[in-house]
Amino acid sequence: MRRINVTIWNEFVHEKEDRIRKIYPDGIHGAIAQMLGRDKKYNIRIATLEMEEHGLTEDVLNATDVLIWWGHCAHSEVSDEVATRVRNRVLGGMGLIVLHSGHRSKPFVMLMGMDCRLKWRENDEKERIWVIEPAHPIARNLPEYIELPMEETYGEKFDVPTPDELVFISWFSGGDVFRSGCCYKRGNGKIFYFRPGHEEYPTFYREDISQVIKNAVDWAAPTNGPISTVGHWEALEKVEDKFAGRPDSERLHTYITK
Amino acid sequence: MRRINVTIWNEFVHEKEDRIRKIYPDGIHGAIAQMLGRDKKYNIRIATLEMEEHGLTEDVLNATDVLIWWGHCAHSEVSDEVATRVRNRVLGGMGLIVLHSGHRSKPFVMLMGMDCRLKWRENDEKERIWVIEPAHPIARNLPEYIELPMEETYGEKFDVPTPDELVFISWFSGGDVFRSGCCYKRGNGKIFYFRPGHEEYPTFYREDISQVIKNAVDWAAPTNGPISTVGHWEALEKVEDKFAGRPDSERLHTYITK
Amino acid sequence: MRRINVTIWNEFVHEKEDRIRKIYPDGIHGAIAQMLGRDKKYNIRIATLEMEEHGLTEDVLNATDVLIWWGHCAHSEVSDEVATRVRNRVLGGMGLIVLHSGHRSKPFVMLMGMDCRLKWRENDEKERIWVIEPAHPIARNLPEYIELPMEETYGEKFDVPTPDELVFISWFSGGDVFRSGCCYKRGNGKIFYFRPGHEEYPTFYREDISQVIKNAVDWAAPTNGPISTVGHWEALEKVEDKFAGRPDSERLHTYITK
Amino acid sequence: MRRINVTIWNEFVHEKEDRIRKIYPDGIHGAIAQMLGRDKKYNIRIATLEMEEHGLTEDVLNATDVLIWWGHCAHSEVSDEVATRVRNRVLGGMGLIVLHSGHRSKPFVMLMGMDCRLKWRENDEKERIWVIEPAHPIARNLPEYIELPMEETYGEKFDVPTPDELVFISWFSGGDVFRSGCCYKRGNGKIFYFRPGHEEYPTFYREDISQVIKNAVDWAAPTNGPISTVGHWEALEKVEDKFAGRPDSERLHTYITK
Repeated sequence: MRRINVTIWNEFVHEKEDRIRKIYPDGIHGAIAQMLGRDKKYNIRIATLEMEEHGLTEDVLNATDVLIWWGHCAHSEVSDEVATRVRNRVLGGMGLIVLHSGHRSKPFVMLMGMDCRLKWRENDEKERIWVIEPAHPIARNLPEYIELPMEETYGEKFDVPTPDELVFISWFSGGDVFRSGCCYKRGNGKIFYFRPGHEEYPTFYREDISQVIKNAVDWAAPTNGPISTVGHWEALEKVEDKFAGRPDSERLHTYITK
Repeated sequence: MRRINVTIWNEFVHEKEDRIRKIYPDGIHGAIAQMLGRDKKYNIRIATLEMEEHGLTEDVLNATDVLIWWGHCAHSEVSDEVATRVRNRVLGGMGLIVLHSGHRSKPFVMLMGMDCRLKWRENDEKERIWVIEPAHPIARNLPEYIELPMEETYGEKFDVPTPDELVFISWFSGGDVFRSGCCYKRGNGKIFYFRPGHEEYPTFYREDISQVIKNAVDWAAPTNGPISTVGHWEALEKVEDKFAGRPDSERLHTYITK
Repeated sequence: MRRINVTIWNEFVHEKEDRIRKIYPDGIHGAIAQMLGRDKKYNIRIATLEMEEHGLTEDVLNATDVLIWWGHCAHSEVSDEVATRVRNRVLGGMGLIVLHSGHRSKPFVMLMGMDCRLKWRENDEKERIWVIEPAHPIARNLPEYIELPMEETYGEKFDVPTPDELVFISWFSGGDVFRSGCCYKRGNGKIFYFRPGHEEYPTFYREDISQVIKNAVDWAAPTNGPISTVGHWEALEKVEDKFAGRPDSERLHTYITK
Repeated sequence: MRRINVTIWNEFVHEKEDRIRKIYPDGIHGAIAQMLGRDKKYNIRIATLEMEEHGLTEDVLNATDVLIWWGHCAHSEVSDEVATRVRNRVLGGMGLIVLHSGHRSKPFVMLMGMDCRLKWRENDEKERIWVIEPAHPIARNLPEYIELPMEETYGEKFDVPTPDELVFISWFSGGDVFRSGCCYKRGNGKIFYFRPGHEEYPTFYREDISQVIKNAVDWAAPTNGPISTVGHWEALEKVEDKFAGRPDSERLHTYITK
């Protein structure tokens, strides 16, 4: 089976605090990599904000099939150059999984063309993620709903384009709903936004959450579709030259509008 | 009947050439305004590239219900500030009709989050615009298809997000197809991309094309939906504070993942 | 302003019981008609199950712009003939607003091609209807959310095709979510499914619910798009007859597959 | 690699005529099976109209991952019972690939809820199938367009629900366009409608067409998502019983509408 090259990009700032390090001693990326990496099909590389070019050089991105992105408090520290590079690689075919607060990341905001804001609160609320599209490959092997005892609450209206496909809708005990699993196709690439993943909860160690991430990686992996030619393009059919030899003025005034 | 404030933005560069001025002596905006303005419901204002702030000041845009945009050779001369202002007004509820080569305009590219490129050629080909969504209000009073004896040819893949609604597909004698009527909702605003309108043809004087533009303006006009609150948002439901009086460490480690 | 002919179809069975008659003394249809009818733009007719042809004769349906449907316990008593007549009128351009338990009505099930089942319970739960698509005309003049102190609870997965447009998502205190405002285009007609409206609550007297119904009627009203020709259709372009005078066998074997 | 059980259902009536037998000596199903079967991942079974239960017994369908369907002149001879069985299996998770004139087959019409009619003519026209969604797995390994020198022409409006995903649009030399690759999700199942395949042309021997069919089978194969519970469903949250011990009349009249 062909292996899938996954790069997990994590801001890796919160986990420098003791209280968060206790939950994610290897960083959020460490938890995701540990769970996903149990299947040897995934070739996993890590990249973080503090690395040179944030670990996302041309070579790394060109070798990446699917990029997973977690960021929160340092979106603005990601260079425009690297963000644009990610955006262009997605349009060229690389998959992108955007987790939780990554909704405000530069690459996601660029690709959505909107501010991607939402309502939020940190209130230890229960989140219940309902599967809305059971025929979708991202719903593979999932139950009807996933219950997270505690998560950060997000609320609508999530300021993004209408998803091409809506896989999950979440319920929060505080009274909100949220479109928590959103698929987009952009150019040759596939993007999946998945809501859970606040740094204060061990969400990424969960089997069910890891199943979603694995399914999303499988779905978002490049599918080798045609790269579209753009620009001047010759006709494939022979078209009669109606004005051969006649003056330009005739061409420009040749039909009368009703 | 409530009047609709329409601003027609036209680059108004090509029409300075004699050969184009012969087709559009009052500018492309003049032709559109003449046809649309036969119905007194539309309050029409003109704005062009050469005006101060390209005619799109804060006041003008705040008073505009629907902005129609035609541009081609001078997209880069539109200031980022005005383009951003248009983008923000659309997200705030203003309708936007993007015509023909406006697919590469700054506001449209910003709102789409993609380059919006396509295949093209100037070959006097016939364009036949088929109605794909007859239940759509933009198809009001239209026949099954509109035949344009000569137009510039555009070809797929049109490098835009999948339209929320696809109203028209065009056939070109040279062998191409194109999604020529594309609806998008972004934030509180509605966007309609409509393909025809090459400056060398009197397309904008046609009754059928004018019917489409009128329908599009009616569809895109603001519908006074709720402006979404974003940011920190209090729970509407009383949620039990599970950790009242207990240490933070207990909260952070309170549930065991399966 | 052109008037809109609305027919409100109500099963009108539950309201024969005292306890329900106390809430809807004029029937559910009476409440809807009273609220909608305050705007003289709507020409309202009533039809109920017990009428001849359930009040939906060919003439009535041909004169109806938008049909509103409420039914619950007697779906099977609607004749297949009338249900098919409704289905065909929708495909021909008539709007259809399906309320609450009408999700199991014959016309809706026929048009959806699926069983349209869901989870439900009668538990006096709070329903909070969130606006997901503020740019949609059905969201006109609405707040960010509508709170119904008590309603019947419905839960996902709602066994319908993915809506063309999702206008509302509901939150229920018992832990469920539901896509409570769903738009579909079918043929020349527009369908809106709206979830609230259990017979035990005075939901249809509410201003906010009535605003939704009014908006939905305005949206679903016929828009006079082209009726598509089907069947054998002549080419609009002259196509060279490659096999003029040659035997059939040559035509059938003229190209070699790679 | 897990194998995919494919059942190819072919009417197998036209191929009884000499002129069609010359193109498809093993039946249309034989050609499809031959091309698809080169990859041992596919376990292929054949079923035809003339077989007992049309070869689609409960056991066969329960063991089928993806059903491919070609039919044309004998749709009405498929029993309602078998058609319903197919429809139910799709809703339960089986994939369905509907080819060409299968648009009028009983299972497809049932699942679409519409008549699925279109414009057509047999005119030996060229068909050019353009890829509209290159990120879609059905576009894997395809070029920007596929050119079929001769096919039967279909034209819009194709009387089906708007596809969830539109993968291909076709151009015909006679002037028509057609949405030739349409994806739908219905319940737990995935459906792909693919237009080419008139019995008078050796379309199904083509490498490119076979690539599409293979991609479609891979895409439509069941993905083991949750089967949704329907019917009465208990609250997952504890909801305060507001009327414990109080008379029903109080419950029914407890809130005043604004």
